[in-house]
Amino acid sequence: MRLYHAFLAFLLPGVTAHAAAPTPADIVAHAPDSAWQTVAPERLMLMTLADGRRIVIELARDFAPVHVANIVRLARTHAWEGGAIIRVQDNYVVQWRVRDEKTPPEGLVKTPPAEYDRPVAGIGFRPLGYPDSYAPQAGFSAGWAAGSDGVRVWPAQCYGTVGVARDMPPDTGDGQELYVVNGEAPRQLDRNLAVVGRVLVGMEQIGALPRGTGALGFHTDPRQDVPIKSVTLAADLPPADRPNIQTMRTESPAFHAYLTARAARTDPFFVHAAHGVALCNVPVPSREIR
Amino acid sequence: MRLYHAFLAFLLPGVTAHAAAPTPADIVAHAPDSAWQTVAPERLMLMTLADGRRIVIELARDFAPVHVANIVRLARTHAWEGGAIIRVQDNYVVQWRVRDEKTPPEGLVKTPPAEYDRPVAGIGFRPLGYPDSYAPQAGFSAGWAAGSDGVRVWPAQCYGTVGVARDMPPDTGDGQELYVVNGEAPRQLDRNLAVVGRVLVGMEQIGALPRGTGALGFHTDPRQDVPIKSVTLAADLPPADRPNIQTMRTESPAFHAYLTARAARTDPFFVHAAHGVALCNVPVPSREIR
Repeated sequence: MRLYHAFLAFLLPGVTAHAAAPTPADIVAHAPDSAWQTVAPERLMLMTLADGRRIVIELARDFAPVHVANIVRLARTHAWEGGAIIRVQDNYVVQWRVRDEKTPPEGLVKTPPAEYDRPVAGIGFRPLGYPDSYAPQAGFSAGWAAGSDGVRVWPAQCYGTVGVARDMPPDTGDGQELYVVNGEAPRQLDRNLAVVGRVLVGMEQIGALPRGTGALGFHTDPRQDVPIKSVTLAADLPPADRPNIQTMRTESPAFHAYLTARAARTDPFFVHAAHGVALCNVPVPSREIR
Repeated sequence: MRLYHAFLAFLLPGVTAHAAAPTPADIVAHAPDSAWQTVAPERLMLMTLADGRRIVIELARDFAPVHVANIVRLARTHAWEGGAIIRVQDNYVVQWRVRDEKTPPEGLVKTPPAEYDRPVAGIGFRPLGYPDSYAPQAGFSAGWAAGSDGVRVWPAQCYGTVGVARDMPPDTGDGQELYVVNGEAPRQLDRNLAVVGRVLVGMEQIGALPRGTGALGFHTDPRQDVPIKSVTLAADLPPADRPNIQTMRTESPAFHAYLTARAARTDPFFVHAAHGVALCNVPVPSREIR
C-alpha cells in the first residue's frame, strides 16, 4: 500500500521518520510531559449528539469572557438539550442552535460587548515568524493561534475554531447559535465574530457531516437536523466523568521544534521545503488521556 | 433564523448585499459572460462512485502533462472500474486507487518526470497582491492558484486540489493512486507532489466522507472502502453527455473585483476588513450549465 506522509498525524505515535530529520509527528510523539498542560474543567465543554457522537470544546475564556459566560449559562440551564445542528456548508462552517431561541434563560447577556480582540498587554503574543496573509503578525497567544497588530491580539479562525453566529453589527450574538470552521481557514472572520472555543475532540465527526442542500448549507428539512442530546461544562460533571485533555504549551521547546519542522520539511519524503507555513496549518497539538 | 454571511456562497445567486458594497458572491453572480470560459472536454474527467455520486475534475494538463496522460490512459483502459476510495484523513486528504495496481496498462509511464513546477515563461503568472506564507509570490497561472519565485511557477495545493500519491523520492507516482485535499490547504506539499487536477463538481460529497479510523485515515476494513464505478474523460463521452462547466477567467475584471472584495470585506456584515487574503481562500469560481 503506497501512501505519503501525513502532516496532521500528530496523534499517531506509530508514525516514525525514516532518517535523521524528524517529522512534526515524531516531535509531538516524543515531546516530554513538561511540554503539555492539562485543560482545566472550567474550560472544557462536552457536547453529546443524539446519536452518541461526542465533541469536546475548549472555551476561549481569555478572549471572549462574556460570550463564554453566556454559553456556560445556556449549558447550565439545559438550553442546548433538544437543540440541533441546522447548517453544514462545505469548506466553511457547521452551525447549531439551542432548543428555543425565543425564550433565553434568565441571566443571559443579550447584547454582549464586541469581544473580537483585546490588548496584547497582559496576555502576550509569540510571533510565528513567517508572513501572514491577513494580520500584521501571526502567532500564538495564551496557547491559541492568533493575529496581532502589536497593540491588539485576536484569536484566528482556523479549522475547528468555534464562534458565535450573529446578525448585522452592532449585534455580536448572544451565544444561542454557534458555528465551527470545517474547511480552509476563513480568516476574513477574524475580529468580526466572537471566538469562544476550539474543538479538541470529535472534529473528525463534525467534519464529515453531510452538507446541507439549502442556501449557505442550511438544512431544508428539519429531519436533516442533527439533534443535540446535551451540552455540559466538564466542571459540572463528577470528577471521574470529566475528560482529561492536554494541549501542547506553545512556549515549550517541543512546540518550537514542531513549528520549525512544519515550516521547513526536511524529512526524507520532501523534495522542496517551503521555509514558511500558514498559522492555521500549525494546529496546536492536543491529546486525550484515557 | 439568524445567520451570517457566506463567503463561499458564490454559487448561490440569491445572496445579495444589503447596501452599496457588494459581497464576493454578488460579484460572481453578476459577472458578465465574458468573464467565464468553458472547460474543454479533454480537460474534464468524470468519476462516478458506485452509489451514484458524481465528481468532475478539471485536469492540470499545463502543469503535469505526463502524469495527466497517465491518468487518461488509466481511464481509457477502465483501470479505475472496481477501484476505491481507501483513505479519508480529517483535514488533510481523501485518497483513491485503481482496481489492481500490480498490472498497469500498457503505455503507462512508470516513472514520470518530476512535474512539480515549470518555467513561468510561456504560461504567465498574475500576483495575488498579498503576502503568502509559503511562496515568494502567490497568484494565478493559466487560471489556477499558483506559487512562484519569479522563475518557476507551481500549482498550489488548496481545498479540492487533486494530486498524485507517491512513495519516497525520486518516485513521483504513476497516477494509480490519487488524492484530493479536504481541509486547510497543506501547501507544504507544493512542489513535492504532482498536481493533476481540481474538483469542480462534487467536492461537497468528497468532503463529507466518513473519516477512516486507521493510521493516516486509511480504512481498516475493505468494507469501508467507497467503490468507484467509472472514470471517463469527457471527450470520450457523446457530446450530449459531457458536462458543461465554466470557470471564471482569472484575468477578467470581474475576477479582480471578486478577489479585491474577498481581501477587504466592506459589505455591511463586516466590522474589520483584513486587507489581505490567503491564496486558497480565493477559490476560482466555477459553475455547471445544465
